[in-house]
Amino acid sequence: MAAARMSTRAPVARSQPFAPQALGRSSSTCFQGRCVARAAHTARRSVRVFVVKAEDKTVVIGLAADSGCGKSTFMRRLTAVFGGTAKPPAGGNPDSNTLISDMATVICLDDYHALDRTGRKEKGVTALAPEAQNFELMYEQIKAMKDGKPVQKPIYNHVTGLLDPPEEIKAPKILVAEGLHPFYDERVRELMDFMIYLDISDEVKFAWKIQRDMAERGHSLESIKASIEARKPDFDAYIDVQKKHADVVIQVLPTQLIPDEKEGKVLRVRMIQKEGVKFFNPAYLFDEGSTISWIPCGRKLTCSFPGIKLYYGPDTYFGEAVSVLEMDGAFDKLEELIYVESHLSNTSGRFYGEVTQQMLKNSSYPGSTNGTGLFQTVCGLKIREVYERITQNTVMPVVG
Amino acid sequence: MAAARMSTRAPVARSQPFAPQALGRSSSTCFQGRCVARAAHTARRSVRVFVVKAEDKTVVIGLAADSGCGKSTFMRRLTAVFGGTAKPPAGGNPDSNTLISDMATVICLDDYHALDRTGRKEKGVTALAPEAQNFELMYEQIKAMKDGKPVQKPIYNHVTGLLDPPEEIKAPKILVAEGLHPFYDERVRELMDFMIYLDISDEVKFAWKIQRDMAERGHSLESIKASIEARKPDFDAYIDVQKKHADVVIQVLPTQLIPDEKEGKVLRVRMIQKEGVKFFNPAYLFDEGSTISWIPCGRKLTCSFPGIKLYYGPDTYFGEAVSVLEMDGAFDKLEELIYVESHLSNTSGRFYGEVTQQMLKNSSYPGSTNGTGLFQTVCGLKIREVYERITQNTVMPVVG
Repeated sequence: MAAARMSTRAPVARSQPFAPQALGRSSSTCFQGRCVARAAHTARRSVRVFVVKAEDKTVVIGLAADSGCGKSTFMRRLTAVFGGTAKPPAGGNPDSNTLISDMATVICLDDYHALDRTGRKEKGVTALAPEAQNFELMYEQIKAMKDGKPVQKPIYNHVTGLLDPPEEIKAPKILVAEGLHPFYDERVRELMDFMIYLDISDEVKFAWKIQRDMAERGHSLESIKASIEARKPDFDAYIDVQKKHADVVIQVLPTQLIPDEKEGKVLRVRMIQKEGVKFFNPAYLFDEGSTISWIPCGRKLTCSFPGIKLYYGPDTYFGEAVSVLEMDGAFDKLEELIYVESHLSNTSGRFYGEVTQQMLKNSSYPGSTNGTGLFQTVCGLKIREVYERITQNTVMPVVG
Repeated sequence: MAAARMSTRAPVARSQPFAPQALGRSSSTCFQGRCVARAAHTARRSVRVFVVKAEDKTVVIGLAADSGCGKSTFMRRLTAVFGGTAKPPAGGNPDSNTLISDMATVICLDDYHALDRTGRKEKGVTALAPEAQNFELMYEQIKAMKDGKPVQKPIYNHVTGLLDPPEEIKAPKILVAEGLHPFYDERVRELMDFMIYLDISDEVKFAWKIQRDMAERGHSLESIKASIEARKPDFDAYIDVQKKHADVVIQVLPTQLIPDEKEGKVLRVRMIQKEGVKFFNPAYLFDEGSTISWIPCGRKLTCSFPGIKLYYGPDTYFGEAVSVLEMDGAFDKLEELIYVESHLSNTSGRFYGEVTQQMLKNSSYPGSTNGTGLFQTVCGLKIREVYERITQNTVMPVVG
């Protein structure tokens, strides 16, 4: 059982000549669900291969993003792929941050705050600072759940700013750890089977904050600017730095289709997909590995202004090879979404139109007509694939 | 027989509500080589359809271009598609401008000069002026060949500048009429089954002329500039105006891949393909009717600087719907050409790799590594398709 629960990202695998990439689809031969690593990829002769049946494994997904950046929408899209309704633990603390559905449990890493609101004020640190987090406990509890054990997870009460008595969380099939620091601590990071970073650009963040805090809560423009500025040094130092670890970064930028569009209503969204990640094959447009820009609106598909523009191409991101899939603009009608989906490859959809079906099912969620909804949905399908590939076909090479 | 030889561009068809476009693939149903026009495309009820077996028909292809713009290379590429060696008429005038191969005969429209070099000088007109052409005879003789009859075609002797005694030209299967004015005269134009205009931009023309006249013939830069300037008014008035009639314009421009490249060695070539032309379905990249730019060089295909960039998209050209296929840069090695061909659709190639095979066969011709060679080859395949569709499956609707 312990072997079955060994992390696919275990430090030992990362530091050996037999790199984790070599465990992925490209370097293993699979037949009827059983995979054998190809010995040709390593100079060592004594590679022993054994197959672990691991359908009970807890797969850990990390989602990093700033507060107020649409993490909860993203979570709803992800859990929707697995079905069932996401609810707080039954009969528990009404201010619990946990959501449990049939297959997936989403925990909020704010629950691992080491300091409550008063404590942070006393020590003069923000909620973004590492000193305000209990990474030790975060690691222990995620590790325990990965090993199939229930944990007594603390609750950070966002209403009171206090640490409430803990709640019991059972090891789910899929554990989604969302919050500010899922990849900050190395040991926590190594537990992650798949890592997503939601990267909202300063311009869009500002536009959204104005919309929410000024229009809906009556804050002044100056106070919004001041609060963003005050937060920025810690954000850059502790949150933004995690981007480089992510397998997928969803970058949300202002549109380039309308000059000087500043309202954040039309978005250019980029899905930056790391190459060579185990169990993950980046989605692409038309021709894998080449560079393409595509305006689907034309003779067969008519769109209203400003239309849609897609882009795909190889790039490097923090020195690592990535493939970028980008969508600028918004879907105006259903045909456009179907048309775009039909030209995407490696979406990990199980049937033709699954992305569209998911988007329609969740059409009331923010971002359903643009690249955030599209790529969050693709991420959901990717997570399902990662889950399936880990739990159904796990090859554990032992170098020795 | 007369019906079989009726032009597919007959004026009657052009001026009737049942437009010639309606005879093309998009509005007819074909099964086992027999096509029936769809009556739904016209409001008239009394459209009668009859099928003409027309394998002996002479198909007329027009190629318009300025002198020194590579028409002869283009011709060699076109005739290469049909096989056989192109030779001047056997035992005839050694200064004949005609080339005869198994299926195709290429005539040069300079042979229809109404004035010889002295005559033009006396009247003060250039070889570009309509007054210097005998359009009446051009029409009569092309019409006669289209009707299966041989003609006594005059010969303009480019060496002496005189009009030599005529030569007999038999009606070929494919008649290519190349020269300065194939689409200038309306009656001549209406005889054309397919029209190509080779449009070399001023910058490239200038670069080529410098290369040839300065480097090879010792002319001065000033005299080259002066000769281009002197020619320009007549060129614009009588040659350039024909572009709007062409079914395909091959536009040759300086590259955009290297800033300030002025030597005309790296080229951006655009194939502007008219939509709705009978027997002609434009070639495209990935997704018909949308807009795409594609850099094939990347993870799967490596290229040396400056690489290759392709573009495809709908546009309008002189008010008419066109599809533009564009290639910038040069093929560095065979794989690049194969890779590009494998991603093009509607090339009219009969088997996978036919474009590449043709390009290799003619690799000694100028332009074999760039878009001129690529698109001239595609034009050759398109002409073959036009020929086959006219002669094997002709639907002649009679409105009445």
